[in-house]
Amino acid sequence: MNLIGTYGARIDARAEKLFTQSDYPLYGMMRYFMGYVDEHFNPVSKPVGKRIRPGLILLIADSYGILEEAIPAALSVEIFHNFTLIHDDVVDHDELRRGRPTVWKLWGVDHAINTGDAQLILAFRALEEPTLLPAERIATLRTHLLSRYSEVSEGQYLDFTLATTKLDDPSVTERAYLTMTEKKTAKLIRATTEVAPILAGRSEEEIEALGDFGENLGMAYQLYDDWQGIWGAPEKTGKKRAGDIYEKKKTLPVIHAREHLAPADRQRLEDLYDGEVLNEDTVTEVLEFFAKTEAQNALIGCAARYKSNALGAIARMNLPEQTRALLERITHAFVPDIVIESR
Amino acid sequence: MNLIGTYGARIDARAEKLFTQSDYPLYGMMRYFMGYVDEHFNPVSKPVGKRIRPGLILLIADSYGILEEAIPAALSVEIFHNFTLIHDDVVDHDELRRGRPTVWKLWGVDHAINTGDAQLILAFRALEEPTLLPAERIATLRTHLLSRYSEVSEGQYLDFTLATTKLDDPSVTERAYLTMTEKKTAKLIRATTEVAPILAGRSEEEIEALGDFGENLGMAYQLYDDWQGIWGAPEKTGKKRAGDIYEKKKTLPVIHAREHLAPADRQRLEDLYDGEVLNEDTVTEVLEFFAKTEAQNALIGCAARYKSNALGAIARMNLPEQTRALLERITHAFVPDIVIESR
Repeated sequence: MNLIGTYGARIDARAEKLFTQSDYPLYGMMRYFMGYVDEHFNPVSKPVGKRIRPGLILLIADSYGILEEAIPAALSVEIFHNFTLIHDDVVDHDELRRGRPTVWKLWGVDHAINTGDAQLILAFRALEEPTLLPAERIATLRTHLLSRYSEVSEGQYLDFTLATTKLDDPSVTERAYLTMTEKKTAKLIRATTEVAPILAGRSEEEIEALGDFGENLGMAYQLYDDWQGIWGAPEKTGKKRAGDIYEKKKTLPVIHAREHLAPADRQRLEDLYDGEVLNEDTVTEVLEFFAKTEAQNALIGCAARYKSNALGAIARMNLPEQTRALLERITHAFVPDIVIESR
Repeated sequence: MNLIGTYGARIDARAEKLFTQSDYPLYGMMRYFMGYVDEHFNPVSKPVGKRIRPGLILLIADSYGILEEAIPAALSVEIFHNFTLIHDDVVDHDELRRGRPTVWKLWGVDHAINTGDAQLILAFRALEEPTLLPAERIATLRTHLLSRYSEVSEGQYLDFTLATTKLDDPSVTERAYLTMTEKKTAKLIRATTEVAPILAGRSEEEIEALGDFGENLGMAYQLYDDWQGIWGAPEKTGKKRAGDIYEKKKTLPVIHAREHLAPADRQRLEDLYDGEVLNEDTVTEVLEFFAKTEAQNALIGCAARYKSNALGAIARMNLPEQTRALLERITHAFVPDIVIESR
């Protein structure tokens, strides 16, 4: 994401300092995951990782004139985000992240759990870096950020619960999926866009406009990602076509289809998701159920509403025209309008 | 521990509030582990857990006249301590804790990892509770406590490393064991005894005296626990005799024996720790190596030195005679003088 790339990189110098306070390889593992070093703890030429969240924070902070003052919070959010990924990789048994082996894959599950924990502690320590802002304002931000971090752990809880609940369970609803996604993904993007107005001491309305932008952008992005997980072209996504169906992920389309299919088809869909590993034939069958219930349109429509809400929130911001235009461009870049390919 | 029990219980009302901000069972799992509810999330008559750390904090805080003001920090330390146990149980595959099934045993490893993470976040949120103390003093305490929390994760790293390194490796030394124990266990007790003098704005010397007391008490207690793990009577410990040998734990006695045995015996000891599961015969052989090198005396001597340092630190404290006498009684209760039973 070139639009915010230069802002994101500003946290790296500070992060390095936080991660090198001791020689223990524990810190090396964290620096590896943050993308500063390779698995032998030798520096890499260019940090791996897109730094989208700190980039967004600093871009907005800059337009409020508090770029430098927002760095500790930007650092905290990026460190927190990476902590969640270290533990996600453990529970998902993912062996690769950003094209490199994951922490548990290289050093084992025990170290990966502890390294994630150590990294979470650093996410809080990052906030202790002194700035020129009034102490009460930093305290307000800190309390707020911590409660957002709790929401992410609630989202992770909901994700595990949804993943292990059968498709025919009455708790598996579109609302349940959206609430999980809000907490697991969108609230951290909301926190990201709330940091600068809180630190700048802006009005409640302004903080809410920025927060609504972030949350809706986060939702739209995740739904776009879900769309790619089913209908994305492998040459674009680098992933298997319909991969999320093979993985039986309970994203919106399958929940939508289950709710709108006639009883016999619904039973078949539930059986497929409750049964054996899916193959090309059964995945095609699922895709036909999706087509029957216009599940793709439902997903695209839902993503479009969140995207439209994000754009609407930008219009409510008390920010320079130039910044608002940039946030719009970022929104379109993250969530392209989906054009259904005719086959 | 009756000596501090009533102080420790003071955090429970506040903790309950922090753990009930949402209905999600995620918080139920944390309340379960903290001992407030059973596995169906129904209240238990009396919280499980000894609350030693918050008890110590509040006992000292009370003698400085800041009992109420120290509650958020006492809460944080207890929540942090319990977070470490939730993840410890995962990596150690322990099925029972305080006589009840562990979190991973009841709800699976994924939930246990996430519940620990959520609990760690609450350990920081506990510190956000407002008190009447000046903001800078609370900030000083917070920064200090966070760096102690990092040390615990360093200790966990060192523990994993020591556990997976062969006994004949040159890095396996008494010093390495003591450093690991300092970080993993003793620094959190040090933090515990440092909280009150920091919050009370006491001198560096006073903070150091209290901290030295805590750290040495923590070390002495751990070494006493290690002694029990080998020579403790099963009817007292509730554990298998010589359990730490069966588990091939690299505590001081085996490191001491390895360093002091003649080459042939040393080789045999290394082979035993590097080979098959130990049985009654081979454990007896190990115990004979310990006897040959007076490993028990070495351990007892080491524990006694830390205990003596803890008692010496009490003498340096600027606290009422009554409080110092209580801290001495606590020290003797935690670390009884070991009398070797003649067989």
